[in-house]
Amino acid sequence: MAEEIKVSAKQALNYHKKYGGKIEVFSKSPIIDQKDLSLAYTPGVAEPSREIAENPEKIYEYTSKGNLVAVVTDGSAVLGLGSIGAKAALPVMEGKCALFKVFAGVDAFPIALEAEGSTDIIDCVKKISPTFGGVNLEDIKAPRCFEVEEKLKKELDIPVFHDDQHGTAVVVLAALINTLKVVGKKPGKIKVVITGAGAAGIAIHRILRNYGVRDITVTDSRGVINKDREDLNEYKKRVARESDATTLNQALVDCDVFIGVSKKDILSKQMVESMGGDPIIFALANPDPEIKPELAKEGGAKIVATGRSDYPNQINNVLGFPGIFRGCLDIQAKAVTEGMKLAAAHALAELVAGDQLNEEYIIPDPFDERVAPHVAEAVAEAGLKEGVARRRVSPESVRQHTHCLVNIGHRTMKEIYEQHLSTHVCSVHINGSTENG
Amino acid sequence: MAEEIKVSAKQALNYHKKYGGKIEVFSKSPIIDQKDLSLAYTPGVAEPSREIAENPEKIYEYTSKGNLVAVVTDGSAVLGLGSIGAKAALPVMEGKCALFKVFAGVDAFPIALEAEGSTDIIDCVKKISPTFGGVNLEDIKAPRCFEVEEKLKKELDIPVFHDDQHGTAVVVLAALINTLKVVGKKPGKIKVVITGAGAAGIAIHRILRNYGVRDITVTDSRGVINKDREDLNEYKKRVARESDATTLNQALVDCDVFIGVSKKDILSKQMVESMGGDPIIFALANPDPEIKPELAKEGGAKIVATGRSDYPNQINNVLGFPGIFRGCLDIQAKAVTEGMKLAAAHALAELVAGDQLNEEYIIPDPFDERVAPHVAEAVAEAGLKEGVARRRVSPESVRQHTHCLVNIGHRTMKEIYEQHLSTHVCSVHINGSTENG
Repeated sequence: MAEEIKVSAKQALNYHKKYGGKIEVFSKSPIIDQKDLSLAYTPGVAEPSREIAENPEKIYEYTSKGNLVAVVTDGSAVLGLGSIGAKAALPVMEGKCALFKVFAGVDAFPIALEAEGSTDIIDCVKKISPTFGGVNLEDIKAPRCFEVEEKLKKELDIPVFHDDQHGTAVVVLAALINTLKVVGKKPGKIKVVITGAGAAGIAIHRILRNYGVRDITVTDSRGVINKDREDLNEYKKRVARESDATTLNQALVDCDVFIGVSKKDILSKQMVESMGGDPIIFALANPDPEIKPELAKEGGAKIVATGRSDYPNQINNVLGFPGIFRGCLDIQAKAVTEGMKLAAAHALAELVAGDQLNEEYIIPDPFDERVAPHVAEAVAEAGLKEGVARRRVSPESVRQHTHCLVNIGHRTMKEIYEQHLSTHVCSVHINGSTENG
Repeated sequence: MAEEIKVSAKQALNYHKKYGGKIEVFSKSPIIDQKDLSLAYTPGVAEPSREIAENPEKIYEYTSKGNLVAVVTDGSAVLGLGSIGAKAALPVMEGKCALFKVFAGVDAFPIALEAEGSTDIIDCVKKISPTFGGVNLEDIKAPRCFEVEEKLKKELDIPVFHDDQHGTAVVVLAALINTLKVVGKKPGKIKVVITGAGAAGIAIHRILRNYGVRDITVTDSRGVINKDREDLNEYKKRVARESDATTLNQALVDCDVFIGVSKKDILSKQMVESMGGDPIIFALANPDPEIKPELAKEGGAKIVATGRSDYPNQINNVLGFPGIFRGCLDIQAKAVTEGMKLAAAHALAELVAGDQLNEEYIIPDPFDERVAPHVAEAVAEAGLKEGVARRRVSPESVRQHTHCLVNIGHRTMKEIYEQHLSTHVCSVHINGSTENG
């Protein structure tokens, strides 16, 4: 088992202070002399503008849109911190943007919105959409996040993806696919209980259905979401089932898979014991899981996964969103479909080869450099098949492109960061020493 | 006289295609291993978020806000192309962002808005403002641009600057300051005529008044804007004067300075001849000036300036906005005041030393590396005096900081661009050869 990597509050604050935030905008094209100026700006820039005015699809050819993703939040459900607002959410959004770049060469930019509810978010994202080739929604509370995503998907011609929903769902499904291989069960035959009916829970329900799981019970803080309940919003109604069980305890009896996206310590050893043979426990509440892995094992759990880096089988969203968006951008996708999400999950699962697969290795490591290229290839291939691609490129070229981006990103990072990145290197003149990290 | 640098439509299109647009987002801080991940993202990132939730001003300490500027347009008045819309305006906005970076190390990001009028623009910019330390409005048509700027200045606590107005006005004033030295005239004693009552004309009127010019006549396509006219909008009313002259012809008689921000060939040789001694002609319409410089000279013009790089005395906005925003960002300014704009103009004028100053050198060259550091220093100093600074740093440190940024930008540009920038280098896998420039 990996040792837990402890980072103190002071280290985290110093890291952010040292670099003055985490993102920087660069000019991709050199502007060294008057000729460059005439090409990049006036008078030359009038030419691509004219071309796009005549044919708006040429925006992909002459601008950065095709590699730009907006990371959008209203700060209403940030990490475990709750509704802390747009400003306080900005470090998290910048972090996400940094991950997009490092893990898949995606240029992502944080849009932290001072918005009052879903209409505000929808309106603003629509207005700023020309700049972007995709929208990643982030840390927006349920059920607001569902409405925002559904409306934007309808109204925009670029992929809109709420990572807390679908990113989580993709990685969970990948882990489940491999887990079922280990225990020798079929999706159509298993009983699954999901605790938590927020963004992640609802989306996991959906992707499991699309994968072929039939028997799924979702619970929230009031118990099983069944059709008798009269307190359900539109989105919880979609996951409600006929059931005699009303409590989590009851629902778990003889069930095969527990997927927790709720809160710490709601699952007891006794509850694990009540499950069917070879219980599978995905306890994904962060930072403290629904049950401690040691305790789950004591209760007989065959396979345990958490969101933590200090236990085996880390379910980490960074395994999903970079490659998913990379695949979308490379085909200039008009949307990201359910088929593309399923393809991403299968691709991720495939990376753990049959002879490596075991109870403590059901999902690749976040720093496994094969992940984004393989996921991007699969997503692009599915997008091409499903008719959402503006650009027809081979899935293999998407894999190579992504591989190059990941490789360059990792190889040159230290070099670039220390020597070149201008805002950091020069900040000594304003901030004094930068060596406070 | 410099030779005109011709760029063909094909070259301009290839330049944009080769790099796939002009901007790229980078992660400023290295993310190499699990520990970096824990610092930049969960769980470490919760710390700066918590700090900002408690004290929103700490957003400057822990995020990139302090170096980020939004370059905002609705695409309603783009270059000479008119109202071509947000998408077609994007190459111009990206170009502006690239210039911000290259000339002053400012991280600028294009926000091309699909907006219907000023309320839409104002609402959206307010909502996205948490991410940014400043807003540069660009290519928004008059009078919409005035309303948008005034409202946003009132409602936001960061600098809001419409470059087509104030950027142009600052550089024009700098040129005028030096021109008056050459001809030995005082601002309080000169007669000025401005043709064009759009964004630039109205703003030039304002900065000249603040500089101490008393006798200013503004004309539009219907002639002199005087108080008798009944067709004036709110903004034209502000520049209306008591006058017997109704035509440009009449207004120019005995006048000292002509400033054209209107359209080509509206000024004749005879009109220049009718002006007072040592006529000064700033013919700034782009790409074709109000009068050809040769013709103005034939009419007796003492000093001629244009917006073109192929004549002496190029009035180019790139002399202003990078240093102005650099100065604002370095003091974490709450606003950009009229005093800061005046300071920028004086700083720019100062860079042409007395013994160098002559009829063909009244303003520095766009690639003069002293410009942004000197302007930034002056703007920061004025901002500190006027009480709009959140951060107290010495103006000298702002100069050094800017110098470092400009220097690094220029020195490492070729190197970085060819070797490192990932989206460009890797695009060969998707686009084939990148050598089509």
